[in-house]
Amino acid sequence: MSTAILNAYLRHAIERKDYLAVRQFLSEFQAVDLADLLQLESIENAHELLTYLPDEQRADAFGHLPASRQQQLATAMADDEVSQLLRHLDADEGADLLHLLPEQRHDRVLRSIARKERENLRRLAGHQESTAGAIMTCDYATVPADVTVGKALTIVRSTAPDVELIYQLYVVDAHHHLLGTLSLRELILSAPGACIRDLMTTDLITIPVMDDQERAAKLISRYDLMSLPVVDDDNRLVGIITYDDAMDVAEAEATEDIHKGATVSHLAVNFRDAHFFTLYRKRILWLLLLVFGNLFSGAGIAYFEDIIATYVVLVFFLPLLIDSGGNAGSQAATLVIRSIATGDTNLRDWGKLLKKELIVATGLGLTMAAAVSLIGAYRGGPDIALVVALSMICTVLAGSLVGLCLPFMLIRFGFDPATASTPLVTTIADAAGVVIYFWIATLVLHLPAP
Amino acid sequence: MSTAILNAYLRHAIERKDYLAVRQFLSEFQAVDLADLLQLESIENAHELLTYLPDEQRADAFGHLPASRQQQLATAMADDEVSQLLRHLDADEGADLLHLLPEQRHDRVLRSIARKERENLRRLAGHQESTAGAIMTCDYATVPADVTVGKALTIVRSTAPDVELIYQLYVVDAHHHLLGTLSLRELILSAPGACIRDLMTTDLITIPVMDDQERAAKLISRYDLMSLPVVDDDNRLVGIITYDDAMDVAEAEATEDIHKGATVSHLAVNFRDAHFFTLYRKRILWLLLLVFGNLFSGAGIAYFEDIIATYVVLVFFLPLLIDSGGNAGSQAATLVIRSIATGDTNLRDWGKLLKKELIVATGLGLTMAAAVSLIGAYRGGPDIALVVALSMICTVLAGSLVGLCLPFMLIRFGFDPATASTPLVTTIADAAGVVIYFWIATLVLHLPAP
Repeated sequence: MSTAILNAYLRHAIERKDYLAVRQFLSEFQAVDLADLLQLESIENAHELLTYLPDEQRADAFGHLPASRQQQLATAMADDEVSQLLRHLDADEGADLLHLLPEQRHDRVLRSIARKERENLRRLAGHQESTAGAIMTCDYATVPADVTVGKALTIVRSTAPDVELIYQLYVVDAHHHLLGTLSLRELILSAPGACIRDLMTTDLITIPVMDDQERAAKLISRYDLMSLPVVDDDNRLVGIITYDDAMDVAEAEATEDIHKGATVSHLAVNFRDAHFFTLYRKRILWLLLLVFGNLFSGAGIAYFEDIIATYVVLVFFLPLLIDSGGNAGSQAATLVIRSIATGDTNLRDWGKLLKKELIVATGLGLTMAAAVSLIGAYRGGPDIALVVALSMICTVLAGSLVGLCLPFMLIRFGFDPATASTPLVTTIADAAGVVIYFWIATLVLHLPAP
Repeated sequence: MSTAILNAYLRHAIERKDYLAVRQFLSEFQAVDLADLLQLESIENAHELLTYLPDEQRADAFGHLPASRQQQLATAMADDEVSQLLRHLDADEGADLLHLLPEQRHDRVLRSIARKERENLRRLAGHQESTAGAIMTCDYATVPADVTVGKALTIVRSTAPDVELIYQLYVVDAHHHLLGTLSLRELILSAPGACIRDLMTTDLITIPVMDDQERAAKLISRYDLMSLPVVDDDNRLVGIITYDDAMDVAEAEATEDIHKGATVSHLAVNFRDAHFFTLYRKRILWLLLLVFGNLFSGAGIAYFEDIIATYVVLVFFLPLLIDSGGNAGSQAATLVIRSIATGDTNLRDWGKLLKKELIVATGLGLTMAAAVSLIGAYRGGPDIALVVALSMICTVLAGSLVGLCLPFMLIRFGFDPATASTPLVTTIADAAGVVIYFWIATLVLHLPAP
């Protein structure tokens, strides 16, 4: 059924005030699909639809909405509706929602929530953006070390309805220090009389609460974890990060790197929904910087102006040569940056990769020189062919070296290697290409040096 | 402890033939870290280290190695060593290993493996690369529909040691048709006498075995699944894909898109370990295509050669203007391509995004025109300032439109939108920029048309 028919059916049921039909219709949706539907509707309709949903499903669907939509809906809701929602949202999502509300609403909406949950929410909402703390949840299952498997199973059964993930159990002492972990699988396979302390794994992978969330996602992916425990300075367990949140972080980080590769600054909302002024702001800075970067190419051209005036045919090959250097350099930079981002390459590999790039770039340059020399011979005779062929080899080599080295240099000086975007590499390679090209032309064509 | 010290300690223990120390030392590693260690060592040493490991740990570490390393090690191993390994690898990893062995070894290494496992391995190894079938495993937990919770728990306990993931149970009939799913959480929370049929979820998300693995990863991420059931044409359950494999697929797909964005073709190995001839092959095709693409810019320049000869100062601004158009276009293309890849944008959004891009690009063009007109006035007076300012607005608009529209056009004609790489957009924008620039110069400077 198309969305249009679905919506018509739904709207009709609402108009007829056939709430049973509406509820039945909505109950067949997955939470994330319901969220998509809520985004297509007006705020009033979306708000109304939410009221038809049972508490759990409403919270699930709400949790899948982007922050901007959550904020609009929360503004439309009464305080007790928001409180009701907070009680059923996962703790990390609840904290995110709290972030979106104006300070003066916090106390009002938190009033009707149980003290422990309220404190958890306040604590989670206090973590800095993009840290492990900001994406962790405190709905996890703990067991003491000195109980039997049978007793632990009883504890798990009693806490299961409140926790987000029960398949990984955390063993803590009275002060909530993390002692070990145990999977539910090991628990149900063990003899009921065995002691947790003897079964638990003590070789733990944890992350400090202030660490970068990107690192958390990498640990989860590298060690195939279902959840990663988050600890404070004292090794006390303060939360866990689940694999599904890690997937979202990994996707967001890949998006950020891809955008950076084309000089688009960090965009917090998705492209389709971004306001045009936001897009302008995220794009203009680098474009202007690159305009000034291109003045170096201009300066190179100004320096060789007399030669250009004598041999105007040289201008024909200018875009081709400088672009080729930039293209080869972008390839090298992109390969290096992604390889660093996935953890396959680090600073130490620099020398080895440089050697390999020199060989590859020479091969690329020779092939492209062969292609371009034919065009050179056709347009300007053998001298021009020689000039463009030699220039091609040199610009491709120069561009490739810029592309390979720039990301490593950026790391060395404490910057993000992804700053070595394709347009930046191209701009540097262009300036180098201009100088190389006209200098080789001066030599080969026996022109007086400018 | 640094890797060097670690390795020295290990080597010393091996030389002393202190196998207990070696085993103790190795047992403290996580499988993936052990795999890193095995990659740094020579094949002989890596092979020897593997023999010290207990079966499970050996299989875990081996499963984390890249395919090229697995192949080298398997070649060094005797048939019974490979058989032993196959028995302990997860089924999907076992099938991958089988893929790497020469045909004539298949029967020999499979001989000592139990018939059922052998058939599973053969079947898994038969799936086409990059399909859901190629990354699924057949080590999952099933229960019949008409048993009680108590009986189901007994079944789960007895099969748990052999399956990869027991937290999601699949309910199947006698012919292995998928009837429903049930989480272990629901199972342990339910009354022991309840019937599975009454508890299971029948609203299933599944994927056909021949579907793209990228789609599988997207479903897992979108619906926050722990595992995704893979079914044949007859809705029979043939395997499951687990969340950790989905994470690896998502990372590999992001890498492929990032590489495509800089015209690097699909690279199956990681950049650091790629052979230089492989890198040459993956880069040369597009570089050559772009050389020929750049001939259009050259043709534009040739057409306006007389104007250039008269106003050589115009060449000063050429790289700056054409690059700006290309840069703005790359930004737009990258935003669109990533937004399509994450599922935030589809073909239908084309018109809406075009309108927004027109507004944004006009803003960008005006800002950049203001900046460049100052330089134009300084270098060539008010006329040149006017020419470069007008050209800047038009090239930025043209570049942005190319960048926005090209990915949608590629989809429309059945191509991957990621083919609209930064260098391709730049090349098209360059050619447009040349024509726009010199045409505006002709008009403003009252030059005779060429």
